[in-house]
Amino acid sequence: MAKIFHTLVSVEEAAKIIENRVQISPVGEEYVSLFEAWGRIISQDLLSEIDSPPFDRSEVDGYAVLSTDTFGAEEDNPKILNLVGSSEVGTLPKKDIKVGECMRIATGAPIPKGADAVVMVEYTKEVGGKVYIYRPVVPGENVSQAGSDYVIGDIFLKKGTVLTGREIASLAALGYNRVPVFKKPKVALFSSGNELTLPGNPLEPGKIYDANGPAIFSMIKECGCEPKFMGILPDTFERMYYVLKGVLEDFDVIITSGSTSAGLGDLMYKVFDSLGSPGVIVHGLKVKPGKPTIIAVIGEKLVIGLPGFPVSASMIFTILVKPVLMKMAGFDRIELRKVDAIVPFKITTGRGRRTLIPVSLVESGGRLIAYPTPGSSGTVSTLNYSEGFIDVPENVEFIEENEKVEVKLFSEKISVPDLVFIGSHCPAIDFILSMFKRKCATKIINLGSMGGLNAIKRREADICGVHLLDEEKMEYNFPFIEKFSLKGKAVLVKGYKRRQGIVTLKDNPKNISSVEDILRNDVQIVNRNKGSGTRTYFDHLLKQVAEKNNEDLQTLVKRIRGYTYEAKTHSAVALAVLQGRADFGICIEYYARKYGLNFIPLVDEEYDFIILKDRLEKTYIKEFIQVLNSDEFKTKLSETFQGYHAGSGTGKILEP
Amino acid sequence: MAKIFHTLVSVEEAAKIIENRVQISPVGEEYVSLFEAWGRIISQDLLSEIDSPPFDRSEVDGYAVLSTDTFGAEEDNPKILNLVGSSEVGTLPKKDIKVGECMRIATGAPIPKGADAVVMVEYTKEVGGKVYIYRPVVPGENVSQAGSDYVIGDIFLKKGTVLTGREIASLAALGYNRVPVFKKPKVALFSSGNELTLPGNPLEPGKIYDANGPAIFSMIKECGCEPKFMGILPDTFERMYYVLKGVLEDFDVIITSGSTSAGLGDLMYKVFDSLGSPGVIVHGLKVKPGKPTIIAVIGEKLVIGLPGFPVSASMIFTILVKPVLMKMAGFDRIELRKVDAIVPFKITTGRGRRTLIPVSLVESGGRLIAYPTPGSSGTVSTLNYSEGFIDVPENVEFIEENEKVEVKLFSEKISVPDLVFIGSHCPAIDFILSMFKRKCATKIINLGSMGGLNAIKRREADICGVHLLDEEKMEYNFPFIEKFSLKGKAVLVKGYKRRQGIVTLKDNPKNISSVEDILRNDVQIVNRNKGSGTRTYFDHLLKQVAEKNNEDLQTLVKRIRGYTYEAKTHSAVALAVLQGRADFGICIEYYARKYGLNFIPLVDEEYDFIILKDRLEKTYIKEFIQVLNSDEFKTKLSETFQGYHAGSGTGKILEP
Repeated sequence: MAKIFHTLVSVEEAAKIIENRVQISPVGEEYVSLFEAWGRIISQDLLSEIDSPPFDRSEVDGYAVLSTDTFGAEEDNPKILNLVGSSEVGTLPKKDIKVGECMRIATGAPIPKGADAVVMVEYTKEVGGKVYIYRPVVPGENVSQAGSDYVIGDIFLKKGTVLTGREIASLAALGYNRVPVFKKPKVALFSSGNELTLPGNPLEPGKIYDANGPAIFSMIKECGCEPKFMGILPDTFERMYYVLKGVLEDFDVIITSGSTSAGLGDLMYKVFDSLGSPGVIVHGLKVKPGKPTIIAVIGEKLVIGLPGFPVSASMIFTILVKPVLMKMAGFDRIELRKVDAIVPFKITTGRGRRTLIPVSLVESGGRLIAYPTPGSSGTVSTLNYSEGFIDVPENVEFIEENEKVEVKLFSEKISVPDLVFIGSHCPAIDFILSMFKRKCATKIINLGSMGGLNAIKRREADICGVHLLDEEKMEYNFPFIEKFSLKGKAVLVKGYKRRQGIVTLKDNPKNISSVEDILRNDVQIVNRNKGSGTRTYFDHLLKQVAEKNNEDLQTLVKRIRGYTYEAKTHSAVALAVLQGRADFGICIEYYARKYGLNFIPLVDEEYDFIILKDRLEKTYIKEFIQVLNSDEFKTKLSETFQGYHAGSGTGKILEP
Repeated sequence: MAKIFHTLVSVEEAAKIIENRVQISPVGEEYVSLFEAWGRIISQDLLSEIDSPPFDRSEVDGYAVLSTDTFGAEEDNPKILNLVGSSEVGTLPKKDIKVGECMRIATGAPIPKGADAVVMVEYTKEVGGKVYIYRPVVPGENVSQAGSDYVIGDIFLKKGTVLTGREIASLAALGYNRVPVFKKPKVALFSSGNELTLPGNPLEPGKIYDANGPAIFSMIKECGCEPKFMGILPDTFERMYYVLKGVLEDFDVIITSGSTSAGLGDLMYKVFDSLGSPGVIVHGLKVKPGKPTIIAVIGEKLVIGLPGFPVSASMIFTILVKPVLMKMAGFDRIELRKVDAIVPFKITTGRGRRTLIPVSLVESGGRLIAYPTPGSSGTVSTLNYSEGFIDVPENVEFIEENEKVEVKLFSEKISVPDLVFIGSHCPAIDFILSMFKRKCATKIINLGSMGGLNAIKRREADICGVHLLDEEKMEYNFPFIEKFSLKGKAVLVKGYKRRQGIVTLKDNPKNISSVEDILRNDVQIVNRNKGSGTRTYFDHLLKQVAEKNNEDLQTLVKRIRGYTYEAKTHSAVALAVLQGRADFGICIEYYARKYGLNFIPLVDEEYDFIILKDRLEKTYIKEFIQVLNSDEFKTKLSETFQGYHAGSGTGKILEP
């Protein structure tokens, strides 16, 4: 477990060390068809090779004339010209026009020789072979002159321009069918670690799936590079050496992730260093997380070892690797997508180390709030719930409540959610959202009722779904507004009733008939997460069992097999029973039926919504309440979800 | 030229008519590898198929213990445990631990049976077979419990989510190697018009290149669809009918552009209408530009005819077609990229018709300003210079000066320029920008010196490059600040000198020796655009010739062949001479040498910069002036550009 960390350097220092050692610039040029050009970057200034328009052409439908022939024309004193033919788009007119003559002309058609202006059709009348002109035109009127847009040799696109539809239109209009763009740098990507299994394969005991391979692959792609995932690195010096040595020539950059800290980390350091000179140039970054990052240069090739945890790997990639790859891809200016946000409470940082804090964004009163995402760097959900991260410099010890921070987004394509729902899992939420007139980007996090209430308290959620029984008052949800000190700050919006009960396998092989059966030695249960309404209700039932047995609740739960196996959703409970991992669970009827399980009803619980008062005016909150109040929703709810029913109170706002 | 426009409808009405006739929804589902998943959209809620983490694992490097064994441990009173082995990542430990024992454990390694916590290595000392524990741990400390992140059945990704690195990380971590996504709708794209030639082919007289094919192709791609460009539609009813009929089955949507207004427009209307029922549902939009838009529905397939001018086609595509295609691609919420901006002067609109005004964006004082782009819809440069457009409702007759408007951007990938340079063409501008420490996104528009000064006056440009001779004072540039009423508003930043002269072919076959030779019958010239410094200088020379000849300038210029052939750049002048399109031109020495032409020096003109006073504080303006002042620039300028030289005044700020 010995580690070699040489002098730790800051990310900025690392970037400079890289720049001093390697030429960070585009890797070449290639020609692509205009149909493959979107998003590519022009590799040289482009000159027009034609005059545009290529000939004098009409900007309107009308009659090509010699302007002097129209001078003095008036509504009640038209000039009359002889019609000598017509000029159509696509061919040069066969005739010229002379004094006293005119020619019919379509928008975009070439101006016949002799004409110097076009009268719009609206100001003319054609009668037989004559055309009455009711308004005069000046020379050049309604004529787009050859070369007036671009002439041969004009620079119309500059090196470094990212191609979108508008540039592609110009390229095509000027006759280009292929365009010189910067080559995409080729990046070889490896994962590393004895614990890794590639997704799609069976998971052996002690192993986990490799998340970094596909994730970093897509991040490299987003930088305008061409990644190739090469699988999991072997774990002996010799084999690792030969694999890396073998790809050095064919790629512009090599990136690995994982195995940078303990054990294998030493190995990787040694392999990187032995691949060639100058070898390892950075070993360890002054940043948290991300310390065990290794950077080597072999000849002119950059070899980067990222940390193994997906959150750490993603953040270090974003601040250190992305700028390098984008520059190599030809981007002139490297701009990470950032948004301004406010922190909701004081955050203490890594003191003396630059700190990267993954955050979840919530819009509130026109501002964004950045909530540090709970969970360690090793947690899958941390990344899934975060839109980006705060990058705190090493000399900052804490961020004050309400301080403005910059959040670096994990991807160009990440959008800030319009509506954040945190609370108890309920499949009907999606159903409500599907009835919105204007679709909104919703972030739904199933953290249970209490988790949701805490999120409301921290103002992190717009809506929280709850089904919590107050055992003293024997009343659902409403008392919890006061219990969570939300009186005056939040309201309750009445939801609907959901039937909860015991689920067992279809034929109930263990003959479970009531909650008391969970004390049996042959019964394994699946529990719900602490703070969920179902867990609270289950504990309420257990208290009754304990009382009946004259037993302490703590002692009782120790006798329950699987009490600590916690699922966060009803569907997970039902699946645990269906797949035989548990014999007993409590969930809503809907999922019992969905998975064809046996269901023993226990209670019709009330599922309501807690919403911050000052967010009631938010567009999508209004829409949410509107849907709850609609007859359509009330009717369709019980049709769609067995065991659900809405009442006349559904959608009403209550305030303590 | 007769036209059929049935009842014109608004864009909103057209959108509703479409929705009433066709089901606008995803066209299917397919499974793609995680390595192809970036940017795709999940087609169903995804459940975790494993517990994550799959086993209890350590969050730190340290020793796995039974927490009760550590109770009471202190810095000066450690608990001593027997070391019974180690747990490494990737394999289950072979031993359990018992009371009084501990096991070495690495971050991510499985917790051995019997242990319930991990003591961090920092709070331990290993001596022989014993481990000294200096701090107690509570049960569960530093342990990431199996399923604590997700358990089997938890919904971890919702239908409609756009996949980026973070979602792909979750998918991989939970074992997915393929993922169900919405199929990309297939769109057949045609261009139409007798005047069209495909880019890459020689241009016949009267023809222009098809800009819409490649441009709309890339816009369709940006909507998440799969476009196929099918070329130019034939121009007879029968052939057009069979071509369109032939692709109806294989594609989800058919889009054409061009030929929707006159002549062929009737044809296209009739063909659309004859393809099947219900046929044409919209023929003509109440919007300017974009009126001649045709929409048909054949069975369940949408057939859309866009206008031919690239600017019109792009704007109608953006407001009408893009939302439809994105919805079919599976995007939940259709959000066009928009920015807020201020209009710099009163803009009169289409009165009673919705009006789309292409604009060019400039950042000024933290706000964006939206300048209507000059040029007609048919102009290539209009689209090239515009970042997006203002969408003015039909009931708005004008937009007031300084009114806030929303600008719809032409692409997701368009970025607002950091620095706008409008003025005289000079290749050294790129050279200055290349010396910036921080790269900036620059928009360079070569409109000549006067065009630049007008842009400064309208506050549209950050920097304007000028070389204008005041014939009265015989002084360059400085007097024009007052002439353009910019006194007190703008300053002059001294640039450098550039040698201008006459260019002819290398061996000067027409024996041109002075400006007077342009009056010769065998000499064809290439002129520069009105308002450019070179044009002004040329006219100054012509006045001298006219005086000498006792002739009026107007009469004189009529004798000059090619006087109205105007190039906007020095490079275009040099190329016109090189390619034999002109025998005489005036440009800077640099381009004469670059193209190996004969050069007759005329003058060392002064090229300076006009900058608005209140923009002097803009970061990139500061950097611009800094570069001009640097010794490096002054030295390298004349090395890089023949005929250029900087002096001690270069970079100095002068104010009238």
